[in-house]
Amino acid sequence: MAQKVSPAVIRRLPKYYRYLKELQRNGVIRISSTSLGNGMGLTASQVRQDFNCFGGFGQQGYGYNVEALQNELAAILKLNAGYRIIIIGAGNLAHALINNFIFSANGFTLVCAFDVAPDKVGTQIHDIPIYHMDELEQMCQVYQPDAAVLTCPGKIAGAVAQRLTALGIRGFWNFTNTDLPALDADVVCENVHLSDSLMTLCCCMEKGG
Amino acid sequence: MAQKVSPAVIRRLPKYYRYLKELQRNGVIRISSTSLGNGMGLTASQVRQDFNCFGGFGQQGYGYNVEALQNELAAILKLNAGYRIIIIGAGNLAHALINNFIFSANGFTLVCAFDVAPDKVGTQIHDIPIYHMDELEQMCQVYQPDAAVLTCPGKIAGAVAQRLTALGIRGFWNFTNTDLPALDADVVCENVHLSDSLMTLCCCMEKGG
Repeated sequence: MAQKVSPAVIRRLPKYYRYLKELQRNGVIRISSTSLGNGMGLTASQVRQDFNCFGGFGQQGYGYNVEALQNELAAILKLNAGYRIIIIGAGNLAHALINNFIFSANGFTLVCAFDVAPDKVGTQIHDIPIYHMDELEQMCQVYQPDAAVLTCPGKIAGAVAQRLTALGIRGFWNFTNTDLPALDADVVCENVHLSDSLMTLCCCMEKGG
Repeated sequence: MAQKVSPAVIRRLPKYYRYLKELQRNGVIRISSTSLGNGMGLTASQVRQDFNCFGGFGQQGYGYNVEALQNELAAILKLNAGYRIIIIGAGNLAHALINNFIFSANGFTLVCAFDVAPDKVGTQIHDIPIYHMDELEQMCQVYQPDAAVLTCPGKIAGAVAQRLTALGIRGFWNFTNTDLPALDADVVCENVHLSDSLMTLCCCMEKGG
């Protein structure tokens, strides 16, 4: 289904999901497409169009049930698919993610991390064990990961991605600020280009006094 | 100028800039809009349209000079405007950014960080001093920052942003996974929603065997 849906709509789904979670926390049970759009900076018509891509979930004149819509979105986002993810590169960013980021709330179970530094290999961050990159093949057999977070140096990202793809990894969450080489057609890559993000902020700032 | 340009074009500028830097590293001196488009996943016409928003930099049948175009983009992105930035919250993510991220290559000089933890306040990460949040007003007078990286807990992000806006901060690089409240019209916020990003990856993955 997702293949027919535009990337822009796909990219809005997590935002809807996040907003609906907030509404639920605030005790909202039902919401109109107009209110939902207002909260998201979209028009009511855009909201309805977005959901129509998936068959539409509302009822004319009734609005959306917040909990039901959230469940529908979780299913579309495949948050309960049970994907397993590993981290390549156990530096500060990996620490930050492991300590502060709830992978399980975003569709993935984090199973282990890999590095080459002798003072890291064999230790744990929270309960996540760190293995040596030499053990990658062996441990991927054990853990059967579906995806990998790349927090390794950019200069090895391409080679690592190819090695992981050969091991059955089909998704990359790429923090290396490097574009990965062309991968198999069924492999997806989500880049977090922090440089692009900060430059965008820079560009949009107004030089004042 | 930037006000008239669509957000989608603005968001592509850092990608052009990054790609041109790579071309220059590889010794490319001149490039056609077709080749530039190919490398960026855009059509030649889209490339020309994007640059026409800023007056156009190429010459018919000649292409773009890689170094000159890079300099033009740096100017549009305001990378040399001399903005100063501070970090609120000196946890793992702040460490990761300070240790691995080159702020100066992306338009900002990182001047200091703030936290409340007694074991952090008074120390440094690389040469960046960490002050107590109680010293925020005083230190903003000293350092005159233009922007702030928010790596603090999400539940205080809104209040911190309002406090910083009152101190003259006009840009936020927001990692708190929380949307900031409405701020002054001349204040810009660039959100790095890691949750949205990982959910997008999850959604796009193909469940295989």
